[in-house]
Amino acid sequence: MLGLMQQRPLLISSLLDYAATWHCRREIVSRGADGAIHRSTYAEIATRSRRVANMLETLGIAPGGRVATLAWNGHRHLELYYGVTGAGRVLHTVNPRLFHDQLVYIMDHAEDAAVFFDPVFAPLVEHLAPHLPKVRAWIALCGADAMPEAAVSPLLCYETLLADAAPDFAWPELDENAASTLCYTSGTTGNPKGVLYSHRSTVLHAFAACATDGFAFSARDSILVVVPLFHANAWSIPFSAAMCGAKMVLPGPKLDPESIYTLLRDEGCTKAGGIPTIWLMFLAWAEANRGRIDLAALKLRHVFAGGTAPPRAMIEKFRDMMGVFLLHAWGMTETSPIVTIGAPLARHADAAPDQIVDMQVKQGRQVFGAEVKLVDPLGAALPHDGKTVGELKVRGNWVVSGYFKGEGGNVLDADGWFSTGDAATIDPDGYVQLTDRLKDIVKSGGEWISSIEIENLAVSHPDVFEAAVIAAEHPKWQERPLLIVQLKPGAEPDKQSILDFLAGRIAKWWLPDDVVFVDSLPHTATGKLLKTELRKRYAGYLLGKAAGA
Amino acid sequence: MLGLMQQRPLLISSLLDYAATWHCRREIVSRGADGAIHRSTYAEIATRSRRVANMLETLGIAPGGRVATLAWNGHRHLELYYGVTGAGRVLHTVNPRLFHDQLVYIMDHAEDAAVFFDPVFAPLVEHLAPHLPKVRAWIALCGADAMPEAAVSPLLCYETLLADAAPDFAWPELDENAASTLCYTSGTTGNPKGVLYSHRSTVLHAFAACATDGFAFSARDSILVVVPLFHANAWSIPFSAAMCGAKMVLPGPKLDPESIYTLLRDEGCTKAGGIPTIWLMFLAWAEANRGRIDLAALKLRHVFAGGTAPPRAMIEKFRDMMGVFLLHAWGMTETSPIVTIGAPLARHADAAPDQIVDMQVKQGRQVFGAEVKLVDPLGAALPHDGKTVGELKVRGNWVVSGYFKGEGGNVLDADGWFSTGDAATIDPDGYVQLTDRLKDIVKSGGEWISSIEIENLAVSHPDVFEAAVIAAEHPKWQERPLLIVQLKPGAEPDKQSILDFLAGRIAKWWLPDDVVFVDSLPHTATGKLLKTELRKRYAGYLLGKAAGA
Repeated sequence: MLGLMQQRPLLISSLLDYAATWHCRREIVSRGADGAIHRSTYAEIATRSRRVANMLETLGIAPGGRVATLAWNGHRHLELYYGVTGAGRVLHTVNPRLFHDQLVYIMDHAEDAAVFFDPVFAPLVEHLAPHLPKVRAWIALCGADAMPEAAVSPLLCYETLLADAAPDFAWPELDENAASTLCYTSGTTGNPKGVLYSHRSTVLHAFAACATDGFAFSARDSILVVVPLFHANAWSIPFSAAMCGAKMVLPGPKLDPESIYTLLRDEGCTKAGGIPTIWLMFLAWAEANRGRIDLAALKLRHVFAGGTAPPRAMIEKFRDMMGVFLLHAWGMTETSPIVTIGAPLARHADAAPDQIVDMQVKQGRQVFGAEVKLVDPLGAALPHDGKTVGELKVRGNWVVSGYFKGEGGNVLDADGWFSTGDAATIDPDGYVQLTDRLKDIVKSGGEWISSIEIENLAVSHPDVFEAAVIAAEHPKWQERPLLIVQLKPGAEPDKQSILDFLAGRIAKWWLPDDVVFVDSLPHTATGKLLKTELRKRYAGYLLGKAAGA
Repeated sequence: MLGLMQQRPLLISSLLDYAATWHCRREIVSRGADGAIHRSTYAEIATRSRRVANMLETLGIAPGGRVATLAWNGHRHLELYYGVTGAGRVLHTVNPRLFHDQLVYIMDHAEDAAVFFDPVFAPLVEHLAPHLPKVRAWIALCGADAMPEAAVSPLLCYETLLADAAPDFAWPELDENAASTLCYTSGTTGNPKGVLYSHRSTVLHAFAACATDGFAFSARDSILVVVPLFHANAWSIPFSAAMCGAKMVLPGPKLDPESIYTLLRDEGCTKAGGIPTIWLMFLAWAEANRGRIDLAALKLRHVFAGGTAPPRAMIEKFRDMMGVFLLHAWGMTETSPIVTIGAPLARHADAAPDQIVDMQVKQGRQVFGAEVKLVDPLGAALPHDGKTVGELKVRGNWVVSGYFKGEGGNVLDADGWFSTGDAATIDPDGYVQLTDRLKDIVKSGGEWISSIEIENLAVSHPDVFEAAVIAAEHPKWQERPLLIVQLKPGAEPDKQSILDFLAGRIAKWWLPDDVVFVDSLPHTATGKLLKTELRKRYAGYLLGKAAGA
């Protein structure tokens, strides 16, 4: 027997309708590449999003067609978030910092029919255009007076097209499972793969972000969106902020500490989200400039960080210097991204400050709506004891069922779980801690050694600039850790001094079998260590040594 | 083009699974009729709910079958909330305070196959049983030692059945639109009508309750559930508390102020929800007992109230005496019930205390997921100016599409909106204020006069015990207000003194055309004024007067 409640599709357009009706005067502030502040409101964003929808009709972009953006965080990018998806087209947010080859691959694979780009990316689109014959229009996100030179055809002006487009557009009642946005993973192996979000997944995910134990967004918040709009839906902020009528502050390309501070101060930001790198720079600058800035006057109370784990010192500095609680969240492009968030439990009310930080360094606990589980290689559930390392699997309405165009084949197990590729522990309170990428774990005689833990220790050696630990083949133990180190300029330690440094700090059997010094370590376009490359180079290193010994 | 995200059904069982996995030791505290405190956890509730599911199989209740409860707020009632719905049966929560005739009508109409009842309701079920031949089992919610006498057959013991039922049960992957719970409206006209909620509507509604601008539930909350579990899903608390792992405190039948205070104190309650009547009594008692109780030691910070509008003095007393913010919410059985909640906006941070109370007395602003609109009699949208009175209409995933078995016919307009029957204003900030029931409004020469406003003023006259204003037919103005008054014992004012009292306080043309004194006013079983009855009695009263004059 079915219930007798209304069945209305969960649509992104309803988020904008909500904000434009009930929070019509709430501001959307964005800063352009030139530093100029632009003030808009949900009502204006809604009207301009409707014009975007009409613009897409005029440009001949069919429903379901992909519309790419190469843009920083600004109001026009936000208008595309809503205009494109509301009109039943698919917004493909592209990371402009990828290598050209990757951009060409991704945009060709997505079959992008139009590309909206910030004028600063004019040279980039000139490079891309010859390789992307399916693109029917290149639209610069600016007014007629700011149009860049670019040998692409046709080169169109966003503001001109917008002014020509009618302000009325009835958002279609789409299937809630219709595709809405598309984002490619920048995997370290193989080609990037597209994650195709739906309206339903996006709206449900926004509910999780608005939850008090999510990002706790409310109509009283002013949110600084440091995380790029091209990173996994900017952690849902463009959607979840609208869901509750929060003010959004979009900082454009300038993410230097002073620019961030100025926005926090002038726009009364209460929350801010971005990757730890940004916050490390910000905190260092804030500390150095304490004399001339007024940190106490900021309304900032929560910073949320993800992408990589924020170090303990960052969490403490936010607390001690600014009275800010760092909310550590975790997810992947494949998971929309929110899976776990480090919201406190009741017992933390009486916990010592250090214990709270112990919790904050972990990746957080599962929000309702995404499911995580910890399993051994045979798929059996492992205990939540904070020690047992297993593979983290994920399931839920905002988790991929497969990649765009079937790339990578079937990515779910028989019960519908997606393998994150992460090794992790879960403590008795439910907080997940990632210990390593599963493929980077060193499997030494059936026991697991975390490459990341050794790397983190190694970089605290005063002579070490960067470190990588890989699993090298071993005749007796199958795999043993090999430490590869780039030293700081001028440093000249010997291998033993590095090993001695580690010896007291990790289990004896975790000690790397050898240390290799290199001039530089290989990285991906997004700055991650390229361990696949290192494994190729050094796979047989220990075997060779053993044979030679 | 469809997205490629997982499509998992939104099911109530997943709420319990979440709480039992990630908040397994979080407490569910309930107090029995004898005052004894019972402590349980989400993990235990989950196991016992699975036993309930097996019990239903044993009792032969078919999937989709209705299972009634006549019970106060306790852990066993909560187990039924989850066990019955998780197993794909429909939980029919029945208000035991209804008249016998209504109970028989409702339970017969619902075709309840089993009735779970608190021992205290044994005499009630004895009365009901002969009229409900379809009930296959009467189960007393107690252990074997506490079994009541009751001439019903078969009379079964909950704890005995539970102990005999297996603790393992795999929750079925139901259609998310499957029926989950059933609740009848106690309308003032016609027979009660059943609202049949679905798993989807319930889960989406719980998301709204967990939102920071909803009830803002978190894992850190301990929630006192004063609102009965048989009132419109207890405002979603049994579901939304599980969604975030909040502790629940279920007070049983004793709702006297001292009992409430003891629970608030002993269980560290941070939030509490109930109707204003309960809070009025509580505040009066707390004020009178300030010397011997320690209000400052309570952790209570938010009380949410609905059902009727909390008076201004109550809001101020909660604030001044206890530092508690009263969150005024509004909804109907037909709307699950949350539609509007009085969460503050950013501008309230700098508002004077009185302005915040001005906001709190209103019914709140629309949460995302339910939609409200204000329309004139022709359906045209009316301005949100805080003055224009119109009809409030509602739409959304947790709003009825029709009543059980089609009673009342088509209840939605062409665009899918449900008529609340309420007259209201909406202010520029979006806060809704109900002004009257639409059918009780006096339509005087095309202008609307609020019966409730006049009644509220009339009862502030020192001699008036209760007052009702109805629309009486009038030869010139179609309708004019007639004031019907029950005086306090011993009071002997004349009509004119009552009218003089009102004269300075309302517009001249709002003044009732006459005052009628009565010994008592008619009420519904739930205590609402039965204006239909008064309209029957006094419809022609003014006509008669006009003819006789």
